[in-house]
Amino acid sequence: MIELIQDGNVTSPIGFLAGGTYAGLKVPTDGALDLAVLVSECEASLAATFSTNNVLSPSVLLSKERAKKGYAMGVIANSGSANCCVGDQGYQDAKEMALLASGHVNVKPEDILVCSTGVIGVELPMALIRQNIGNLNLTSTGGHDFAKAILTTDTHTKELAISFDGQGKKITVGGAAKGAGMIHPNMATMLAFITTDAAVDNTFLQKALSDAVDKSFNMIDIDNDQSTNDTVLVLANGKAGGALIDEKSPQAGIFKESLDYLCIELAKEIVRDAEGTQRVMEVIVDGAESIDDAREAAREVCSSILVKTMLHGGDPNWGRLMMAIGKSGINIDESKIDIYVNEIQIVHEGQTISFFKDAVVSAMNAPEVRFGISLNLGDASATAWGCDLTEEYVIFNSAYST
Amino acid sequence: MIELIQDGNVTSPIGFLAGGTYAGLKVPTDGALDLAVLVSECEASLAATFSTNNVLSPSVLLSKERAKKGYAMGVIANSGSANCCVGDQGYQDAKEMALLASGHVNVKPEDILVCSTGVIGVELPMALIRQNIGNLNLTSTGGHDFAKAILTTDTHTKELAISFDGQGKKITVGGAAKGAGMIHPNMATMLAFITTDAAVDNTFLQKALSDAVDKSFNMIDIDNDQSTNDTVLVLANGKAGGALIDEKSPQAGIFKESLDYLCIELAKEIVRDAEGTQRVMEVIVDGAESIDDAREAAREVCSSILVKTMLHGGDPNWGRLMMAIGKSGINIDESKIDIYVNEIQIVHEGQTISFFKDAVVSAMNAPEVRFGISLNLGDASATAWGCDLTEEYVIFNSAYST
Repeated sequence: MIELIQDGNVTSPIGFLAGGTYAGLKVPTDGALDLAVLVSECEASLAATFSTNNVLSPSVLLSKERAKKGYAMGVIANSGSANCCVGDQGYQDAKEMALLASGHVNVKPEDILVCSTGVIGVELPMALIRQNIGNLNLTSTGGHDFAKAILTTDTHTKELAISFDGQGKKITVGGAAKGAGMIHPNMATMLAFITTDAAVDNTFLQKALSDAVDKSFNMIDIDNDQSTNDTVLVLANGKAGGALIDEKSPQAGIFKESLDYLCIELAKEIVRDAEGTQRVMEVIVDGAESIDDAREAAREVCSSILVKTMLHGGDPNWGRLMMAIGKSGINIDESKIDIYVNEIQIVHEGQTISFFKDAVVSAMNAPEVRFGISLNLGDASATAWGCDLTEEYVIFNSAYST
Repeated sequence: MIELIQDGNVTSPIGFLAGGTYAGLKVPTDGALDLAVLVSECEASLAATFSTNNVLSPSVLLSKERAKKGYAMGVIANSGSANCCVGDQGYQDAKEMALLASGHVNVKPEDILVCSTGVIGVELPMALIRQNIGNLNLTSTGGHDFAKAILTTDTHTKELAISFDGQGKKITVGGAAKGAGMIHPNMATMLAFITTDAAVDNTFLQKALSDAVDKSFNMIDIDNDQSTNDTVLVLANGKAGGALIDEKSPQAGIFKESLDYLCIELAKEIVRDAEGTQRVMEVIVDGAESIDDAREAAREVCSSILVKTMLHGGDPNWGRLMMAIGKSGINIDESKIDIYVNEIQIVHEGQTISFFKDAVVSAMNAPEVRFGISLNLGDASATAWGCDLTEEYVIFNSAYST
């Protein structure tokens, strides 16, 4: 059984230290943090997924290289600058960030990964980072500061920890993530950091992470735009003292389940805190011929601007759901499609039924709305999460750099 | 040489009659029209392209079938209802619409195509159409009323005619189109009707239309959503008395050129009149390895919500252009990319240059902005057109059905 830990975060698992400081990369506001380090007390198994955008931040390039060896000690992260589209300097700066962090925590530089988030096309102010790295106070209760320091346009931290019984040992898994725009991940997503004190076989850890990311971060959409800096990583340090978990372990199932749960909750938190959002949707497509079809259709609905605006207005304009399913390109039989808003059926066999409109309008005016779409062709299903498109989003993103 | 005809439209070519009337399908406003017929005085060569959405209006299904024979007499079109997602009734209604039009103009029902546009999921009010079809007054100057009757959320008609010298005969090509939301055509687009008094070989006409659509309607984006009802068709009736134009004719080149010109102008008009738009962009991608790559990248930039919002704010946040090119998935070398706003270079070899920001901000505050993106890898180029995303668009589309 998976249990939620009160006020849990990346330092809830045993043997992780973290902290955040203000180095001057972001506009100074009360309590603003913009530079953070997360480190394991011992070498940790590492799994990671990265953005598939063809334009990548050198921070991602460096982390991708270093992630190949399957273990790491920790990660340094900054907000304020994406360290992207800055030429060769970006790679030098990412390497120096890792070097500074490694010196501060006394580990090898190549065991430190780097994550950056913020404006594209602006160099990292390395002088500020050099000057302030020493102020980082890393503690076993520093997870919240870490979660704070990675935020950009997010209005609050996204952090969580859960535990389960691993054959007599309490295993904890913690995580932190950030959004809040340029979100339509593909194979990876924004920034999310996951820690666990389980001992986990590296191959199994990568597979478990990839599976979890496919069900969570890869199933959310804010604005159909894919970042250049997306990174999700998990560090497993074995400090809980349990047996090594691999594909065949009795604990493999619950570990995967806990990772899925954590990733889905963090992903949903990112959607709930999307730029300008006032309402979120859960889109469940079932009865598809394949998982890929179900995923594609669910994401297409969540990404449609016309669905997003109708969600914003609380307007049950179901023709837009049909349009989005149709444009997804998956195999459908229009005359078999049923559509539900929460529990209320509004479309039967591809046509509207005389639903009680007030009830649907009322359902659509809740902060979270569920669209159920039954294709009635097969057994596959998938769930995606998206947010509404609001005037605030437009205003906010009209003047982000100036 | 192609000459623009003053106040030209679909009845500018010889031998076409058209008209529009109000049948009560749309909210009655001053001068509102919602039912229209366009007919040739003699059998016309026909070419057409249709939406590739897997959910299609039965009006499209019927027209697709009838277009196969390569000739037609004309088309009946309605606004107010898309005749889509209404079950088998939709096909019966489309057939009856054609039958009513054919009776009114005294031609065979199977020679009439049908186009519908408006809300999805609402049956056509056939009683109103039956009752009002007789009010349609078809004349050789009725092109403007036709263009008016096909509008939905458009604020003005999109119509145009051009002429060229076809070996001593003046050949005229006219067109009408409508937008203004759910626009991200794929292989076809919204509604556009093109007429010409040239005599055109049917195979050549289809190829010329497909090529023109690929350069025009298929290169525009308003909201990344693809309609269920998109149709572009061209009727060529030969009434100008010129020789038959086919692939090998001396007139083939100028005919294709005139069709390209007409389609591009109508497509740009659709973008300029997009729901809520205040500013449009022309995105020229050159130096790509293939035309497909250039097209893909140009469309990805035009469709990006973050590019659309930065355009709205007149904010030269060029990192978003890089992000959009990267997510298009085409082959790029980031360190070779140059970016221009109008004539001003802002990115050289993938990095920002110290451009004069005020000049760029001023360029971006014009009603039309050009982004030039040089990939410097090959010789292929493509141009796409898009609009900004505005608060008005969001407000408008939040309450379209209710």
